[in-house]
Amino acid sequence: MGTIKHLACGLCERTFSPGQLHNLCSCGGSLFARYDFAAIRQTWNKGDLATDRRCDMWRYGPVLPADSQEAVTLTEGWTPQFTAWALGFELKAGNLWIKDDGRNPTDSFKARGMSTAVTLAKKLGARKLAVASAGNAAGALAAYSAAAGLQAYIFMPKDVPQGNFLECKAFGAHVTLVDGLISDCGKIVAERKEREGWFDVSTLKEPYRIEGKKTMGYEIAEQLGWTLPDAILYPCGGGVGLIGMWKAFAELAELGWIGSKRPKMIAVQAEGCQPIVDAFQREEPSSRMWPDAHTLASGLRVPKPLGDVHVLRAVRESGGTAIAVSDGEMMDGVELLGRNEGIFAAPEGGAAVAGLRRLLENGFLKRDEHILLYNTGSGLKYLEAFSARYRRQREGEQDKLGGLITPR
Amino acid sequence: MGTIKHLACGLCERTFSPGQLHNLCSCGGSLFARYDFAAIRQTWNKGDLATDRRCDMWRYGPVLPADSQEAVTLTEGWTPQFTAWALGFELKAGNLWIKDDGRNPTDSFKARGMSTAVTLAKKLGARKLAVASAGNAAGALAAYSAAAGLQAYIFMPKDVPQGNFLECKAFGAHVTLVDGLISDCGKIVAERKEREGWFDVSTLKEPYRIEGKKTMGYEIAEQLGWTLPDAILYPCGGGVGLIGMWKAFAELAELGWIGSKRPKMIAVQAEGCQPIVDAFQREEPSSRMWPDAHTLASGLRVPKPLGDVHVLRAVRESGGTAIAVSDGEMMDGVELLGRNEGIFAAPEGGAAVAGLRRLLENGFLKRDEHILLYNTGSGLKYLEAFSARYRRQREGEQDKLGGLITPR
Repeated sequence: MGTIKHLACGLCERTFSPGQLHNLCSCGGSLFARYDFAAIRQTWNKGDLATDRRCDMWRYGPVLPADSQEAVTLTEGWTPQFTAWALGFELKAGNLWIKDDGRNPTDSFKARGMSTAVTLAKKLGARKLAVASAGNAAGALAAYSAAAGLQAYIFMPKDVPQGNFLECKAFGAHVTLVDGLISDCGKIVAERKEREGWFDVSTLKEPYRIEGKKTMGYEIAEQLGWTLPDAILYPCGGGVGLIGMWKAFAELAELGWIGSKRPKMIAVQAEGCQPIVDAFQREEPSSRMWPDAHTLASGLRVPKPLGDVHVLRAVRESGGTAIAVSDGEMMDGVELLGRNEGIFAAPEGGAAVAGLRRLLENGFLKRDEHILLYNTGSGLKYLEAFSARYRRQREGEQDKLGGLITPR
Repeated sequence: MGTIKHLACGLCERTFSPGQLHNLCSCGGSLFARYDFAAIRQTWNKGDLATDRRCDMWRYGPVLPADSQEAVTLTEGWTPQFTAWALGFELKAGNLWIKDDGRNPTDSFKARGMSTAVTLAKKLGARKLAVASAGNAAGALAAYSAAAGLQAYIFMPKDVPQGNFLECKAFGAHVTLVDGLISDCGKIVAERKEREGWFDVSTLKEPYRIEGKKTMGYEIAEQLGWTLPDAILYPCGGGVGLIGMWKAFAELAELGWIGSKRPKMIAVQAEGCQPIVDAFQREEPSSRMWPDAHTLASGLRVPKPLGDVHVLRAVRESGGTAIAVSDGEMMDGVELLGRNEGIFAAPEGGAAVAGLRRLLENGFLKRDEHILLYNTGSGLKYLEAFSARYRRQREGEQDKLGGLITPR
């Protein structure tokens, strides 16, 4: 556990020992790991990374909560970050980049956080892990629990994408579908966990998922030669990726590896579930439960993010903004990304594209700024959503030919 | 194009210039790239790779048909290869490894070949690329064509998995569903390509897909410290991955980087479509068209592989074998891999697990041999197959609770 000094509550700053399992602070705040960067600076520098061939997020071992040798890993992170010339040309953005976290194990960014969370949960003695999830966190927990030899107890909305349901089953997890939203799933886990002996690894309810997520920020900086973009558009459901990147940038400054420049952090939400946008516009520090939350981007269907305070703080401190886009715009965004760049993104990734288009049009973003779109997952996990857009029998070349081709 | 000496027909050895587009030899044979390894040895060695941080297959640029700077790439290859302790324990195999090509762009090994094929097709002037595909090659062609700014014309069986259909549409490809098998799709491409101006990139009908596929063999060797396993179980539809690995091992020997040891190359097929197994057992040099081909592993539904001669040669020269498993065994194999290792494999990957179980039981493989299972794709591309196994409403914890949980 190397250089973690302590865990600190993000609200009341009360501290906790990292050597045992923790969920929330008694004040309700999430716990965050604090490291001894003075010590880390003595033994680890940018030059070490320049010659490190490790192609996953555990290359950042000295600022992660476990040694890489003891990691429960499926080779997560170190995902591609590349210039999107063709998409930029179409959107008239001259310096556009994409980071594609659909290339993680279980095809989503959730793998990063579950790698660290399951590593620490196992190390600290947990045997049964439970999660309330909109889908992708569940798939990731199921995969890492299988790799670790632990039991996973999954609670997801009953209309979760089939890909999430099936991967959890294939990983041997215990799956319960709930007639409600992720917030309802969270209540069930909270009620039952003590009796069942579950350790709750739901978003921000334990301190280590965000430690994996923060590697998104380390990778952005390292892959750009220790510079940062002018703006990052991030599809915001629970928002932990955004919080994690913001934590990473602060840590990188403490390491002395980057300067004071920060990207404008832009939270993109769905019109049918936009608690962060609402709070941002009201100039309130936290969000209100969004009523009747609905969007086909299941990862954005989080009516009251537990980390709302931290998301809003990062958005505001960075000079960023929060914006909501429609489901139709998201799907258009996926298609733009697909046919221009060869990336089949989740609707959440499409939301980032749609948000970019809006913010270029209204002038919030300049066309020559270095802009990064963060894609959080693969479209392969949302086949229902795409099936409605691309009809199998009613569209495509076969129709021009009068139906299916029957060869002679 | 560096060090390619020429292209050579795999049947009659007639040679062709690499500087223009080619499909099959006039004798019907596939063309293969031949390099000047004496020249390559002068400028490139294992030590160069040991310090090369490139995390994709283009790290092998000197033995690929284009410079890495001109590659049409989505960061393919350099996929994880790891020991499968838990699965090995369950199957009583003491030195079991997995290489997971589900971690490629478009979630399958087909990305490797399409990266090289599309790179060369674009460079040599093609603008419209056509393919007959069981599904995954189509998705990969669509992605790389989008990345390259080329048009893709896709012909797939009408019952291709929905994931393949949708990704092709999202990449903006022209998709035609055919009431037949991949062999019927191939006939349509062959008939129409001249009139339409398509370049046919179907399996082994152009020389460069296999150049990408051969990196599977380079990676196996490099990731194992320039040794090779005792046996490789490979799910064999068209079989090009197996041919590619065999080519790679020969090239590595020419480079002087490995010795004379070769793995037993084991082709695993489906009981409902086993032309290679059939030819292997009959001791014939090529396969016969398998009648009424059927299996839920759509990638294994290739009734008469164009490269059958090369597959059978590699299997025999290596002292390997060919074996068929049932669809049920494959799905059991996927589940074994999922709950033991946290990998959600395609049914094809499950077939390799099932083949291993059989060959351990009949003594063909020894329990202390170094055995590598090759997983060619992700289970996320086969949701229909898994939906039949894992019923959404009829299985799982919710049933114990009398149906869906409705929170208060």
